Amino acid sequence: MSCEVSLIAYTPSPARVVASAAKLCYSPSRASCLFDGLDAGAVSGFLKKLRSAGHLSPFEHASFTFAADGLSRVTSHQLVRHRVASFSQQSQRYVRANPPGAVMPPSVSASLEAAALFESQLRSAAEAYERLISLGIPKEDARFILPHGAHTSLILTMNARELHHFFSLRLCRRAQWEIRGLAGKMLALSLEAARELFDPAGPPCLTEGRCREAEGCGRLFSSMEEILSEIDD
Amino acid sequence: MSCEVSLIAYTPSPARVVASAAKLCYSPSRASCLFDGLDAGAVSGFLKKLRSAGHLSPFEHASFTFAADGLSRVTSHQLVRHRVASFSQQSQRYVRANPPGAVMPPSVSASLEAAALFESQLRSAAEAYERLISLGIPKEDARFILPHGAHTSLILTMNARELHHFFSLRLCRRAQWEIRGLAGKMLALSLEAARELFDPAGPPCLTEGRCREAEGCGRLFSSMEEILSEIDD
Amino acid sequence: MSCEVSLIAYTPSPARVVASAAKLCYSPSRASCLFDGLDAGAVSGFLKKLRSAGHLSPFEHASFTFAADGLSRVTSHQLVRHRVASFSQQSQRYVRANPPGAVMPPSVSASLEAAALFESQLRSAAEAYERLISLGIPKEDARFILPHGAHTSLILTMNARELHHFFSLRLCRRAQWEIRGLAGKMLALSLEAARELFDPAGPPCLTEGRCREAEGCGRLFSSMEEILSEIDD
Amino acid sequence: MSCEVSLIAYTPSPARVVASAAKLCYSPSRASCLFDGLDAGAVSGFLKKLRSAGHLSPFEHASFTFAADGLSRVTSHQLVRHRVASFSQQSQRYVRANPPGAVMPPSVSASLEAAALFESQLRSAAEAYERLISLGIPKEDARFILPHGAHTSLILTMNARELHHFFSLRLCRRAQWEIRGLAGKMLALSLEAARELFDPAGPPCLTEGRCREAEGCGRLFSSMEEILSEIDD
Repeated sequence: MSCEVSLIAYTPSPARVVASAAKLCYSPSRASCLFDGLDAGAVSGFLKKLRSAGHLSPFEHASFTFAADGLSRVTSHQLVRHRVASFSQQSQRYVRANPPGAVMPPSVSASLEAAALFESQLRSAAEAYERLISLGIPKEDARFILPHGAHTSLILTMNARELHHFFSLRLCRRAQWEIRGLAGKMLALSLEAARELFDPAGPPCLTEGRCREAEGCGRLFSSMEEILSEIDD
Repeated sequence: MSCEVSLIAYTPSPARVVASAAKLCYSPSRASCLFDGLDAGAVSGFLKKLRSAGHLSPFEHASFTFAADGLSRVTSHQLVRHRVASFSQQSQRYVRANPPGAVMPPSVSASLEAAALFESQLRSAAEAYERLISLGIPKEDARFILPHGAHTSLILTMNARELHHFFSLRLCRRAQWEIRGLAGKMLALSLEAARELFDPAGPPCLTEGRCREAEGCGRLFSSMEEILSEIDD
Repeated sequence: MSCEVSLIAYTPSPARVVASAAKLCYSPSRASCLFDGLDAGAVSGFLKKLRSAGHLSPFEHASFTFAADGLSRVTSHQLVRHRVASFSQQSQRYVRANPPGAVMPPSVSASLEAAALFESQLRSAAEAYERLISLGIPKEDARFILPHGAHTSLILTMNARELHHFFSLRLCRRAQWEIRGLAGKMLALSLEAARELFDPAGPPCLTEGRCREAEGCGRLFSSMEEILSEIDD
Repeated sequence: MSCEVSLIAYTPSPARVVASAAKLCYSPSRASCLFDGLDAGAVSGFLKKLRSAGHLSPFEHASFTFAADGLSRVTSHQLVRHRVASFSQQSQRYVRANPPGAVMPPSVSASLEAAALFESQLRSAAEAYERLISLGIPKEDARFILPHGAHTSLILTMNARELHHFFSLRLCRRAQWEIRGLAGKMLALSLEAARELFDPAGPPCLTEGRCREAEGCGRLFSSMEEILSEIDD
């Protein structure tokens, strides 16, 4: 059972906005005319050029806002390390976990013994949380006893340039499975909304044909389908 | 003659996106349900609360992209100092100024003698630029002789939180007239698109009832209309 | 038992660096001469002017690096939300908690019953973690069962402007006690290193004489000593 | 005659600070002990690993502050586009150019005719500026007639990660000669201060053995000496 992600808003005509910004840098046109003056072929051409030259700054003008539920706080802690992004996260200080749920890693659920242990520990943590609250301990303090895998919800916004950066790091097989799953869902939604901006996106093995990791996995991705297939659930 | 500004794209339903993000922080709802579940009154209520408590981070989820033409490079130099923003600017390295135009400050145009001097100097700078290019000097070097007031065009994106910050600094009477004019036009367009997010916006004298400047102008703004009326052209 | 913090490095002569940068903006001097040319009185004068006018950008030139141990991951999750900062955090993916320790909130330790419950739950979480690892579960997954209050260590760098922002938010009585304690220790160390840059620093009730919180605590701080005394341990 | 640059401050023991932060991520040590516990060999080893794996975030903990004089405002406009940096720039609003100087590009000074034209145009711009001021035009407006090549001074701070990024873009032969010269001087000073952090640094042709430019220069750099020799003056 993994997190659920939806794309709740994004810049309209994102590919055209990006292409207009790119064209402005190199043309004597007026900025305000560019947007209406670009046809689909021109948009596509500009985006290809930008991608191949690695000039990604115009991609910043298109912005995407996602909602994520059922993510662990382990992973939200990784996620909010991305600094060129905006986050609104459900507060454990103000919102009572009721009942406190948590993410069970696939490696745990794959073992009967591990899963039983995990489940039982979750239950006792939930009971301890409830008991602490009934003893008058503030929610913000009782949560110290909740597991790090406890559920959280976020709304997050990244621009298309940062999304590419995020996908390049978090769709690598070296990333942990949960943030990889989140990134995969965000990529699938981004592709639906603006394929021209995100095809291709992913780790350097796919987009640059090479791996930068000190200890790589040894298996280069050859397509976005392959990336997305590994993280489907 | 001042710069022309248009709003070429922005996050759809920006007030609702911001209110959903704000609500998520304090409610046990699922992130993906919030967006559809908020009615206009609730949106308005959440925005008021955020504003009054100075909790502006949810404003980051709404993003606005503007095109500006006829701005001077004096002012674009000030503008790009805002670091939480994205800029695509017409390049003087690749685009030939043809003919090179420039912004004449109102204080100059108000004096016959100053205006004549300015005009004549503009003409001789334009001629020198053309002559340097005809001598084989690259555009990127010939531009060193163009006036700092030379025209430029930009496409820029800021989120609503940064726009508030921008308006608070650049609509102050201590800001220079040209960037004040740009900010005023951006504010007018932002109000049309999402009044709930930007009413009020402006310098601290308006939004907080006090001036922070070491040497203030001594005249507090009392309404956004007053701010906008001073910069209309 | 609260976190331990040390200041491991900072820009030498930080007040003089900041004052030089400030002076450059308003003087015809050469940038490279300013630094040596300012005496202590001039430094002090420039800093006072900057502070009173709210022109804090020169404060960015002085940078401070802290090491923190014994912090909970609840609080490190709050801490890394500050985006104008650099963090290096001990990884739960690569480093085995051995034995897994955690922060017990003062509200919990103040109650015999709550403390006993908390301790017992900590022990069983630690045992579950060890058991999962012995079952072959990777560290990065076993940690999902560790409490959110589990210990972590970080090295973090902020410039003096961001430190002021951090102190204004996190020394407020509305901030949670643990990050308030961290901020208090960082402030005490910053004051030792560069009193001129940080006296005063703290929430708006101290620095601006007013509270911005929707639900304030009702008791304005009147001195930094008062702030620091409340968080001493 | 090109700009003059000096390094006025930097984080003490920058290589050790970076290596400590890197080590913390992967070791069970306490953060506060790491700094003193690393010998020179260990520092060197950690830095090599980080570099080869492209894990540059610990480089953010070391910060460098430069003073630059005699730079053109053409180039300061390019420079301040780097957003992960801090700038304090001499203000043309408050500081009177006296006399107004400017940078003459080498392509101009290489041609007697171009140089004469440029000089004469500079003189007439300076006279127009002085005349406008004597007519009562504010400095901030009179500067619109100064050439874009007019002199400016800045104090700027970047951390070592951003410096690497800056060097990778601005030491490329596709960058304009003036900012390349600035970057070269900054690199030479950074190498003196902390060779372990900056050897190698430069465009991708040097550091990754490949060019990403759409229209590259076709001549890969093979050493930092080669990079620095081309920009010496």
